Formats: sequence, C-alpha cells, structure tokens
Amino acid sequence: MKTQNNVVLADNTMTALPPPGSPDIEIARAVKPWPIFEVAQRKLGVAHHALIPYGHYKAKLDLAQIPQRKAGKLVLVTAITPTPAGEGKTTTSIGLTDALNAIGVSASVCLREPSLGPCFGVKGGAAGGGRSQAIPMEDLNLHFNGDFHAITSAHNLLAALIDNHIHWGNELNLDPRRISWRRVMDMNDRALRHTLVGLGGPAHGQPRETGFDITVASEIMAILCLAEDRKDLERRLGNIIIGRDRDNKTVTAADLGAQGAMTVLLKDAIQPNLIQTLEHNPALIHGGPFANIAHGCNSVMATRTALGLTDVVVTEAGFGADLGAEKFIDIKCRISGLRPDAAVLVCTVRALKMQGGVAKDHLDEPNVDAVIRGAANLSRHIENMQKFGLTPLVAINRFPTDDVKELTAIREVCLSHGARVEEAQHWAEGGAGAKAWQKA
Amino acid sequence: MKTQNNVVLADNTMTALPPPGSPDIEIARAVKPWPIFEVAQRKLGVAHHALIPYGHYKAKLDLAQIPQRKAGKLVLVTAITPTPAGEGKTTTSIGLTDALNAIGVSASVCLREPSLGPCFGVKGGAAGGGRSQAIPMEDLNLHFNGDFHAITSAHNLLAALIDNHIHWGNELNLDPRRISWRRVMDMNDRALRHTLVGLGGPAHGQPRETGFDITVASEIMAILCLAEDRKDLERRLGNIIIGRDRDNKTVTAADLGAQGAMTVLLKDAIQPNLIQTLEHNPALIHGGPFANIAHGCNSVMATRTALGLTDVVVTEAGFGADLGAEKFIDIKCRISGLRPDAAVLVCTVRALKMQGGVAKDHLDEPNVDAVIRGAANLSRHIENMQKFGLTPLVAINRFPTDDVKELTAIREVCLSHGARVEEAQHWAEGGAGAKAWQKA
Amino acid sequence: MKTQNNVVLADNTMTALPPPGSPDIEIARAVKPWPIFEVAQRKLGVAHHALIPYGHYKAKLDLAQIPQRKAGKLVLVTAITPTPAGEGKTTTSIGLTDALNAIGVSASVCLREPSLGPCFGVKGGAAGGGRSQAIPMEDLNLHFNGDFHAITSAHNLLAALIDNHIHWGNELNLDPRRISWRRVMDMNDRALRHTLVGLGGPAHGQPRETGFDITVASEIMAILCLAEDRKDLERRLGNIIIGRDRDNKTVTAADLGAQGAMTVLLKDAIQPNLIQTLEHNPALIHGGPFANIAHGCNSVMATRTALGLTDVVVTEAGFGADLGAEKFIDIKCRISGLRPDAAVLVCTVRALKMQGGVAKDHLDEPNVDAVIRGAANLSRHIENMQKFGLTPLVAINRFPTDDVKELTAIREVCLSHGARVEEAQHWAEGGAGAKAWQKA
Amino acid sequence: MKTQNNVVLADNTMTALPPPGSPDIEIARAVKPWPIFEVAQRKLGVAHHALIPYGHYKAKLDLAQIPQRKAGKLVLVTAITPTPAGEGKTTTSIGLTDALNAIGVSASVCLREPSLGPCFGVKGGAAGGGRSQAIPMEDLNLHFNGDFHAITSAHNLLAALIDNHIHWGNELNLDPRRISWRRVMDMNDRALRHTLVGLGGPAHGQPRETGFDITVASEIMAILCLAEDRKDLERRLGNIIIGRDRDNKTVTAADLGAQGAMTVLLKDAIQPNLIQTLEHNPALIHGGPFANIAHGCNSVMATRTALGLTDVVVTEAGFGADLGAEKFIDIKCRISGLRPDAAVLVCTVRALKMQGGVAKDHLDEPNVDAVIRGAANLSRHIENMQKFGLTPLVAINRFPTDDVKELTAIREVCLSHGARVEEAQHWAEGGAGAKAWQKA
Repeated sequence: MKTQNNVVLADNTMTALPPPGSPDIEIARAVKPWPIFEVAQRKLGVAHHALIPYGHYKAKLDLAQIPQRKAGKLVLVTAITPTPAGEGKTTTSIGLTDALNAIGVSASVCLREPSLGPCFGVKGGAAGGGRSQAIPMEDLNLHFNGDFHAITSAHNLLAALIDNHIHWGNELNLDPRRISWRRVMDMNDRALRHTLVGLGGPAHGQPRETGFDITVASEIMAILCLAEDRKDLERRLGNIIIGRDRDNKTVTAADLGAQGAMTVLLKDAIQPNLIQTLEHNPALIHGGPFANIAHGCNSVMATRTALGLTDVVVTEAGFGADLGAEKFIDIKCRISGLRPDAAVLVCTVRALKMQGGVAKDHLDEPNVDAVIRGAANLSRHIENMQKFGLTPLVAINRFPTDDVKELTAIREVCLSHGARVEEAQHWAEGGAGAKAWQKA
Repeated sequence: MKTQNNVVLADNTMTALPPPGSPDIEIARAVKPWPIFEVAQRKLGVAHHALIPYGHYKAKLDLAQIPQRKAGKLVLVTAITPTPAGEGKTTTSIGLTDALNAIGVSASVCLREPSLGPCFGVKGGAAGGGRSQAIPMEDLNLHFNGDFHAITSAHNLLAALIDNHIHWGNELNLDPRRISWRRVMDMNDRALRHTLVGLGGPAHGQPRETGFDITVASEIMAILCLAEDRKDLERRLGNIIIGRDRDNKTVTAADLGAQGAMTVLLKDAIQPNLIQTLEHNPALIHGGPFANIAHGCNSVMATRTALGLTDVVVTEAGFGADLGAEKFIDIKCRISGLRPDAAVLVCTVRALKMQGGVAKDHLDEPNVDAVIRGAANLSRHIENMQKFGLTPLVAINRFPTDDVKELTAIREVCLSHGARVEEAQHWAEGGAGAKAWQKA
Repeated sequence: MKTQNNVVLADNTMTALPPPGSPDIEIARAVKPWPIFEVAQRKLGVAHHALIPYGHYKAKLDLAQIPQRKAGKLVLVTAITPTPAGEGKTTTSIGLTDALNAIGVSASVCLREPSLGPCFGVKGGAAGGGRSQAIPMEDLNLHFNGDFHAITSAHNLLAALIDNHIHWGNELNLDPRRISWRRVMDMNDRALRHTLVGLGGPAHGQPRETGFDITVASEIMAILCLAEDRKDLERRLGNIIIGRDRDNKTVTAADLGAQGAMTVLLKDAIQPNLIQTLEHNPALIHGGPFANIAHGCNSVMATRTALGLTDVVVTEAGFGADLGAEKFIDIKCRISGLRPDAAVLVCTVRALKMQGGVAKDHLDEPNVDAVIRGAANLSRHIENMQKFGLTPLVAINRFPTDDVKELTAIREVCLSHGARVEEAQHWAEGGAGAKAWQKA
Repeated sequence: MKTQNNVVLADNTMTALPPPGSPDIEIARAVKPWPIFEVAQRKLGVAHHALIPYGHYKAKLDLAQIPQRKAGKLVLVTAITPTPAGEGKTTTSIGLTDALNAIGVSASVCLREPSLGPCFGVKGGAAGGGRSQAIPMEDLNLHFNGDFHAITSAHNLLAALIDNHIHWGNELNLDPRRISWRRVMDMNDRALRHTLVGLGGPAHGQPRETGFDITVASEIMAILCLAEDRKDLERRLGNIIIGRDRDNKTVTAADLGAQGAMTVLLKDAIQPNLIQTLEHNPALIHGGPFANIAHGCNSVMATRTALGLTDVVVTEAGFGADLGAEKFIDIKCRISGLRPDAAVLVCTVRALKMQGGVAKDHLDEPNVDAVIRGAANLSRHIENMQKFGLTPLVAINRFPTDDVKELTAIREVCLSHGARVEEAQHWAEGGAGAKAWQKA
C-alpha cells in the first residue's frame, strides 16, 4: 500500500524504512528478514524438521510433517473491475494479514507465485508493493523454490513422451495433427508460440505443428493447484487429455503411462512455500495458474495448510469479483470443499473515477459525480458477491489525493447495499481489518 | 564399486548395508545421511552461515563466505578407452575419497551434476554406484539444486532476446538464417532437435529454422564451469557469439546487452553444491558440460573451493584419458591455472579383455592372451598421460571373476611403463589409494 | 441438355448419335469434328493465317490478324440459385448457340476453360453435356492450349522473384511475413495449401509461411480475363500488390520489375481459343477465373473478339444470377464497357422443387405446390436482373419427368413478372431461342 | 557456329543474314522459317495428317502415323571436358546436319528441349547459336509445345496422390518421413528446394518435409526419354519408387494406381517435336533430362523416329565424352538397343589452351605449348571413345584467333591416335562433315 504510514509494528523492524513512495525494492531491502525457521516456529508453530529450507529465508512446508491443529477462517480478497488506475488486491491482502497479526490475531496470507516470464518483460514483481510486500522479493521473482521449473519439466516430459510414442510405432494410433498437448516455458518468447517440431528426417521424430505456452498456462499448473495431495495429483495428471487418435477418440496421459514420472518430477513442487511479509508474518506463496485461462488462485494445499496453522487466512483471487472471485468459488471451492468466511472487495477512489469516465490524467482532480457514476461498478460487484452469500467488506485503498466527499460517496453506496466499508490506511494501524474480520 | 567388501568405516554407518550387488538405490537408501551442516562443519570446517541449505541434506556453498585456508592437491581420475564392459571412474573417484578419509587424510571429491534428460531414458543415475555413491541420490538426479534449470532459463532468455530483437526492427541487422544460438531443454526430446519457430504471422516473430539441444550441451554450461566468479561469468556470457548479421559479421550476446540479465538468472547456479558420500565425506557436485561436445569436467569454482577446504581433491574427467583427460588439461587447467598433482587411470580386467577382442558374453572366462592384447590400449593411455608429465597410478577396478594371471599381466604392462598399479578393492580397506597418493 | 431430342442439324453429323442419356464422352466421340480451319472459315470468316493451330481441331485466334467486322449482340446466360439437382447453364449456352445457328443466325458461344485440378477429382468435365458439348472434350480438359500452364508459370515467376529479392539483400525491405503473393498449381493438392518455403539454410532463401492456390484462383487469371490487350495486361500485372514492406507499405510487381517477363510468358495465353460445338459452331473457350473468389467469367478479349465475328454471342456467368450475373455486370462489364443485350435465366422443374423443400430423392414425383414455393427463388432472380435493366427470358431446362402442371406454374410466375419463358427442348428445334432473342 | 561464313545454302534464305558475331536472336529473326508442313513434307516425307501443328512453325509428329521407311545412321556429337571457353556441341550438331543436307544427304538433328527455368536466369537459350540455330527460337525457350508442363503435371499429380493417400487413412502405411518423391516446377526457385507441406491442421494433410526440384530433374523426364511408347511409359511410371512404408519397404506409383492418370497427362508430351534449322532442315527437339543427375540425352522415341525418316541422324550428349557420351552409350543405348555409327568429338583451340593452363583472358594469344599440354585431355577422350569401339572424328570448332601452328598441333595429336580431324568451318561449306560421314 503506497499511501500507508504511521505503521504500528510488532517489532521495530520497519521504523527505519524508506518513506512511502520509495521504490518497492528499496523498501524490501531495508527490512532484514527473520530466519525462516523463526517465522515458522513463532508464527506457525512449525518445528525445524517439518521445514525444508531453501537458503535461510525461504522454505517449503513438509506436508507429511505439518500439524493441522487449527480450523482457520478464510478471507477472500477481490476487487472491482480492474482499471489502469490500479486497485491493490495483493497489497491489501498482505496489509490485512499484517494488521491482524498486529492486533494479536494469528493470521497468514496465501498468494500465487509470480511467473519468471513477464518479470523480465513489462510487469513488475508480484510480491505486493510499498510497505505491504513479501520478502525476499528478488528470490520470489527468480526461480523461487523451483516449482515452475518442476512444472515445466513435468509438462515437457509428457510432450516428449507423446512424440516418442509416435516415433516408436505409435501403438495408440495418435493423430499427430490432433495432439492438443503443447510444451511450456517460463519465458515470454513469442517465437515459440507457433512452432514445428520433429523435423530433420526419420531419426528425429514426426513433423508436427505445435507450440509453447508460458508455464503459468500449463494445465499441470492448474492441476497442482487443485490437487489435495500427491496421490490426487497423480490421478489428475493421468486424466489429462493429450489429443486424439486416428478414430478421433481422446487419449490421456494415463494411456501413455506418463503420470508416475510426472508426479516424481513434482514431488517437491507440491510442498507449499513459506516466506514472510515485511512484518515477519507468514506468507504461503504456492502455485500460479494463469488467471486469463485458468482459475487464477494459489494452491488448495497451501490454503488448507495455512488454515490448519493460523486462525485467519487471507487469500486473493485474480481480476475483478465477477471473474476472479467467481472462479475462486466455482472452481477452487467447489473442488476442494473450502469456503470463504468473509470477503473483502478492494476499490480506490481513483479507479471509481475512471469507471465514471474520467481520463487517466485527470484522476487527481476531485470529482464526486464521477465517483458516484463509477460506483455502479462497485454496486454490481457487491451484488454479485451477495449472490454467493457473502456481503463483502469494501476496502478503500487510500491515496493522498482522495477527497473526503468522494470517500463519503463511496461509503453511502456501500451502506445502501448493507456492506461495511473501511479505509485501507486504518488497517495499517491494525484496526479496521481486524474489526472488519471480527464482525464478519 | 560393486565388488568392494570388508569396508572400514569412519563411523558404523555402512555396517548394515545391503550386500554387494544390491541395486544402487537400495544401498543409497540404507544409509542415513548426516545433516549437511554437519558434513560442512566436520569435514570442511565450513560454518552454518556460509552454507545455503536446500533441504536438510543438500546445500550450496556461499563463495563469498567460504574460507580458502588450504592448498589441496588435485588428483585426476581418468580411464582407458571406454567399453560396454564398464570401467568405473566415478565409483573410483568416490571410493578413493572415502579411502583417503578413512586413513585420516582430509579429502573431497568433485564431480559433475547429472542431466535430468538421460536419467528418464536409458542411463542410470550419475552418482556412482554400489558402495561408492553420493547421496541423496534421488535428489541429485531430479532438479538437484536448480542449476540446470537456471542455465536453461539463461540460455533461453538469450534466445528470446534474439528473436525479440529481430521482431522489433532488427537494429543489428541479424540474418535470421545465420543465428547459431539455439535453445536448450533438460530433456531427451528428439522432436525438438530440429524445429521451426516464429510461425503464425507477423505478431509471432520471424520464421526461423533452429532447434533445442540438451542443457548439458549449452555453451552456458561450459562457460559457467570455466568461470572464476560472477564477474568473469558475466564477461564470458557477453562474449557468446549468437550468429551473424547480413554482412556476415559475428554478433555477440553483449551486442544485445543480454549478459546482465543472464547473470542474474545464474546468481545461485554459480555456487557449488555440497552433498556427501555414503561415508559422509564431502562431495562437491557442480556443473555438467557434455563431454561429447564440451570439456566434460565439473566447475572450476567447485574444484578451487574444494582445494581451499581439503588436503586432497579427487576429480574426474569424462571418457578415456586421450579425450577426457586431454580436455581437462588443455581446457580446464589451461584456462584456470589449475594443475593435477597426480593421475589415476582406471581399468578393469573385463574391459581389457574386450579391448583384446573378446565378445561381451565371454568376459567372465579367464583369457590372459586377450588381456595382454587389450593392454595395448592401457599402454597407450599411460604414454599419453606421460606426455603431460603425469605417470598415472593404474587402478584395477576389481571384479570377482578376475583371474590372478590376468591381474599379473596387467601389472607387468604397467611396471614396464614405470607406472604404479593397485587393485581397487584395496582402496576399500583404506590402503591402496592412500598409499598411492602419499607417493604421488 | 440431356433430354433434348428431335435435333435439326445444320449437317447430318448428329443423326447417328448415341441416344440421350448416354455418357457425355460417348456422345462427344461419336461426332467427327470439322478441321478447325473450316470452322473458322465457314462460321467466323477467319482466314488460315489468322489462326494458330494446336493440332487439327483446336486453335488460337491471332488477335493481331482478326477482323472486327461485326457488332454482335451479347446474351448472358445465368440461373436460379444452384442446387444439387443441377440447372444447366453451360448446356443451355451451347444449345442456344446451336439453335441460333440452326435457324441461320450467326452465333458463337464464349465459355471458361476448365481447371485440370478438379477434373482429376470429383467434378466432371466443363464442356457442357449430352448433345450440348464443346469438342474435343478430352483436350479441353487436359492441358488445352497451355493457357493455365502459362498463367501458372507467370504467377510462380513472380513468387520466385519475390523470394529471390529477399534473398539477395532485400532492397525493397519486404517483410517476409507480409508477402501476400502465394504460388499456384493447376492441381487439387491439399498438402500445398499451407507450406513453409525457403528452408535449408542461407543458400536456400528465407523461411516464410506461404502456400499454393489452384491456378484458377490466381490473380493473374482474373487479370488476364479483364485485360484488353497485351499492353493492358502488362500494366495490370505491374499493379499487383505482392505484400508489404517493413513500414507496412504495399509493394507491387512493378516495384520488382516483374511485369515484363510475366507478360512474355503469357504472350500465347492471351489469344482466345477456338473449338467447336457438336454442331460445328464456334466456341471460344478462354480464361477461367474461379467463381468462388474472382469474377467467374471468360475473358473480355474472347468476348470482344466473338462480338466482332458473329451477330450473336452467348456467354455464361458462374453460380446464380445474384452472384454470377452481378459479378458479370459489375466487374466484367464495368471494366470493359461491354453490356448484355439480353439475359437468359435457366431453371429446372426439379431445382425449383428442391428450392421448395423437396428432398433430393423425391424430385421425380410431381409436386406443384413445391414448385410454386420454390419459384420464390426464381421470382427474386428475375427481379434482381430487372434492377440491372434486363428482364430475362426464363429457360426451363426440360427433363422427361417434368409435369405439365408444374411447367404451367412456372410459366405463370414468369409472366407475372413480365418475363418471357421458354422450354429448353424448343431450342433444340431451333425455334424458341431464336425467337426469344429476336424479341429481346 | 559463331565463326562460320561463306555458307552455301540450299535455298537463298541466309544470304541476307546479319554478319557473324551478331546476337543469336537477330540472326534467328532474320530467317523466315518454312511452314512446318513444308519441312515435314520436303525433308522427312511426312504428310500433313501425321503432323500435329502447334502454330505454323512447330509441330509434333504423330507416332501412330509416321512411316519408318529408312534405317538411318546415328552420329553422336560429344566433346572434350567442358571449360568456360566453350566448345560448341549443339552448334556443331546443327552445323553438321545442315552441311550434310547441303551436299545432298538426308539428315536430321535430335536435341534436348531447354528448361524454362534457367532461361529466365543466367543461361542463354538452348537452340544453338550463330548460324547454327533451331528456330523459332523464342518459342523453343518458352513453353515450347507444352511437354515440360505436362511432365510437371504428371509429376505433381503423383505427389498429390501420395499426400492424399496419407491423408485418407494411409492404407499402404506410408512413412511420411520416408517419402522420396518430391514435387517439381519448371522454374529456378531456390525457396522451393526445401519446404514443409501439409500444414494448417487436420483438414490440410499431414505435415511433411519435402521440396521441389526443377522439372528437368524429374524422374518422369528421364523415364519419358527412355520409353519406347505409351505402353512402355505407363509400365515405367508404375515402377517409380515413391518412398517407404513403416516397415521400411519400398512403395511404388503402381501401389497407388497412379500410372494410368499420369500417362494420360503425358499423351501429347510423348510425341516428338519438329522444328527446323536456319537452313530449314529437320530438328527433332524432344525431352530434356538434366545431365547433372540423369542421362542428359533427347528421347529414344525422337531418335528412333528420326532414324526412320532420314539417312543420317545427328545427336548430342551432354558434358564431355567421359560423362555425357558414356551415359549415352551405357544408358540410352543399352536400354533402347540403339547404337552410334560414328562419333564426333568437338574441341576448340581456346578450350585446349585453357586445359593447358592458360587463363581465360589470355586465350586470344597464340600458345602452341599450351595447346599441346591441353591436348592430353583430347587424347584421353579419344581413347575413352575407342574403348566403346568408336574412333571419333575430331571437329575443331574454328575461331578467327586460331593460329595455324596450334591447329597443326591438334591435328598431330589426333592422327597419333588414328583419329580423323576436320575444322568446323569446312562443314559450313558442306564438305568435311559429309566426307567424314561417308567414311565412317
């Protein structure tokens, strides 16, 4: 949260932080992280042997060793329809977690892992921002604990097995033109989108048109995030449809006997990753299915693990409430049996002005009418969430330019729908989020 | 070493091991590894903070924190010309290390990392065998500490930057048909050897013929293994020739400004990996350039680190002495300034019989004449090594079927060249190797 | 026309013909064609020296030598919306021409050349059928006088020049991905639709995605059919847009200087071809632009030549009147200045029943209601033609199964639109068509 | 022959020719050809009905109508090893034919048809040069009588049938990677050498690597030139190996049932073409197998037809005597039973100087020593021909710069091998060639 200040910290870590508005990386580097053993021990009650360290500040949680001693409450953070003005779901999720901990509530946050691909391109990191970040930030954006590499390997192993099968007699009578299983790479590489493989003559396979997707778009990424455990993962991997045979019948990974080897490659990747927020609270960052084409939430295994270790688990769903929260509820919850106990709907004054028709370079000017027009978007999202039985707490992610009248206008819209509303800088003080939660 | 027995162990770890001839994996699993911190502390004198753990039994050595307190001696293990009968360079290297430690000499072994690719194919693991293994064996064969994934990412990032450059105006006037930089994948996938990329129209790049090599064949793999440190690595990466422009002039990675980002991706991969032998002695497994097309030795950084931490460092070069040892000396040593203090030339009675013309299914039958004929190969390798100023100790990797007369024949050949010769089962008792070393 | 009988022949050639319903090829072979010199001399008044013979029964008309002594009237033959039941535009065109000649009117027919491609596939020949054919039928369907081969060569020469230009420095800065000029082949070859060319390394061009169309779909085919003469052809060829440069600007064949060589390759192809009907009347068969994507009429040069040599010229446009006749008028006529003096709209009782909802295997059963329902299609086509200022004569192509009440129903529909209507077997007797024309 | 002058003409056609050294096209256009009917009638005794005219100056000979009334003698024209200096086989062949006719011997010349491809590129026409040309020259170089187009169609029809077969179930179990039958085009188009076809998804065939050769390299070109008649052609087409099946067994065109349709496409192409020399003597130009990879001679059908119509038939084989004449004798003669009755070995003073080591820009300077050195090449070719039982007449194709001493040196070399030798300008006077023949 770029605008938050006056932070009350559990310890004094953040007192010497660069001022709000400093580059994320400067803020992140100014904080000395706790050894990850200490975060696990103090915040999750997880002992040393149940942790698989990756360096001193990252770890995986060994699912076989983790106690499930709590029955945490699940808070879903979603937002209005995204605009270039930005809303702040991730920072809100992290900020809310820190606020809850600040007032003594045991809370953790569950987020997606960022893709290596876009990080070398246009997008910034995916670990929050300002004073609501997960650290170590560089490691998170760079290989992290190897999950995406393992998924890439498992995905491409299946592809290699398919081409190998066709090459060696093609017992399954696969139609090379109807193989739907492509390859993946954790890289923004447009030249790989449409390729021809198997060229070079009979020793080098069968020519086929295919291509590469980014790893976050891998079906294995989605599967890993929906699986309950290694056995369930293996079953789901076997069910993958890889293409069709000459009779146009579907063929699965299990028909190739591929799921066992794929699962072996994923044996570490299924263990949830643990890092910490700037305030040393536990952040479980695990899985990253592409919100554009998959369900866009972190793994069921991480969420479930967090619910067994803290009283509150804050998690985020991609895009706006209509798309991301809907997928969260209709896919992740339906398959896993999880249910959100509360929902937070993030908006900003600026974004609502943009929804109300204000151009991007005029967002700093007060404009109550525009806010009211734009609040139609907010209203509909509140209504949508209510259809799922959840009346969201609306979190206004505050900016310095926000005008009191604008804030009041939003507040009235929320109240008219029976929704509670809080401003995000309160969370920084440990109050709003916590209170919001207590009443939710 | 499959045939070794009567092992004298530093501790009693191996007393309950499965009998010789048991599957490698059974033997490996029968040994409980020491926590890697303990190996580092007790065997290398490396403190906790200088170690970057990857789980409890693997670590990277933080080059910035590692003391260089010793000036170890370097022993090169090479072999006669390889045959399907097998010679045993890796097991000899590990066995020699364990033997040295058993008699109280501080020794470590430096080996290459195995490729994921072939491990899913025909070849077995690459961590030795029998009672001379490095553990944890599964982890070593599966992702290990992510080095190969990082190299793959750095390699393919450069490829993506090239195609991107051509796509966005091609300021360097690169000739798409003369790009020599391909892509890599740590996978045996014949269908990727010859590919076409950039298909699908103007939004998806420029059509080009290219392909994928296995990651061990990446030039970056070779570069990483020859680099002295991160800065040297970055310089070498910049010097990579990626292809030619329309005027047929070479173009480098530095012309694209790629070396910085590539180096960032390799920041962890350059740190040597530490695991342990079955007898808990330090094994530095780092880098794995393909012996077929590159120099085929582990990294200079690992070897140099080991030399600073133990009195003896045993390392191995791929293939026979003519090829592997020659590359070791002419490439790795010439570039790094390292020099072997002694050399071990591994052979087996069976392999020499094969060199002498005996068919594979008759290798169990005693045949002194064949051994003498085949020893011509051994002689020439001894002579080759002598040209480098090294008279090797010949290590006969013993098999139960070996006949005394056969062994005597080999011994005579060695002595006639002034080379010392020992039988490998002695090493298991801690004697031969150590003595060999003491006199070298 | 499969059903016609009682033919009155100018000479007695056809008296010994196989009965109606015999295979087309049997009927065609039963007629001994006149030497083509004789057809030219007696029916067109064209002397020996103005004819370029291709064998004894085919010729090209030497445009430079042909007198333009007449100002013929142009009759367009079109049809209702095509159905699988068949209508018979080509047979009607040929039959009408024969009928006119039979009653002493100097008339010729102008048709398209058939593609070699589909003739080896599903479709039958394209030279009419029954007793209304152009002969020699095999030659017409097989290479004919080489026009399609010449167009193929000219088309592919331009393609070769484009790839050559890119290969040798690409002075025009062509974007290989934005070349819209493909290649053609007079062959049904699906594997050539989407291809990659220029593979194999720097000596073999620049890899590009492209493909082959059938020759009738060549833009050169359309251009040749719209050109006035060789000079106009060359100008039009130069205007061909071949693709775009890196700045997204269009590039033409003239930018490559290609039009001269292309025109040389077409120097014979622009001369109209002359063969004969079964009744030895002149048939000018020239050009064959694909009706699916081009204008679908024979060449302007052939039509104009015929109008200078006979009093009536019957010609045909592809598909139904809405599409084919519209293209004829809006493209061929607009560009050339030609105008039809009359139009014939072909229908059959069977096709109208099909338009009225009768299934294909019930078309033999009398069904006046269905005919009336289906006549809505006929009505609309009449109205469409009237918008062009042409009230068509409706020609009912008679079948033996046609019922008198059905014929009456059609007649009434036509009369209600002020359109005249005749039955096609009358033409065979030389009357209807001629009378129809005289009043048109 | 560029240097000939003082020509004695059968009629006075050539008296007003442009002077020697004028461009070939000017000389060719200066001669008014006889109507081809007249050439056929007066020089071959072939009646009108046995001729299939292609315009007024080209024809095909209808094999079914041609009488075989003579048993002509066959003269093979070959040469020393070719140099950039040029030797003149074609001009010598035509000149010899004209000379024989000039002294009253009934003679014809049999040559290959030129490729359209190279003619648009670097090479000049292929119809001789100077005053020894076949006309009409432009037509010969441009489509000619459609033979190459027909061969192209037949070749590509087979390719289309192969891809079609694979597409529709692949009953023959063809391995798409082992199809050796490529496609052809009569065009120099490097981008087509290596292609991928069958792209675009299941509706568009099966992706395959293949490519296009030039039409003269088509196996069908070679087959057509070796076939005895249509039936033999069809049999040979059926024997074409198109590739291999999944069991690596060869598959033929007959397995696809393709040979019938291919033969139909070639029905006109098998008829030999007749044009005339500048002196109106018969030139049978038929077939053009690529000398680089095929046998490089005109068709057996043309040669045999000419032998039945004239007393002497002069024909040419590609390249030097070692390669071209060897192929002529070992392939064309062996398969057909034809045998040369005499051989002419063409050389020039300039070419022998080049063989003797003189640089190209010094060939105009007299250099007897170099001629003698270079004559080693001539000697060996004479000896080679003698091994076939033929002592060649050596024809020195005269240039104005030739020195008497040089000519004498060549003469002596020839005589020392028992070979007769004549200078080519004598032929122009009708003497040497004729005399040579009379003694052969």
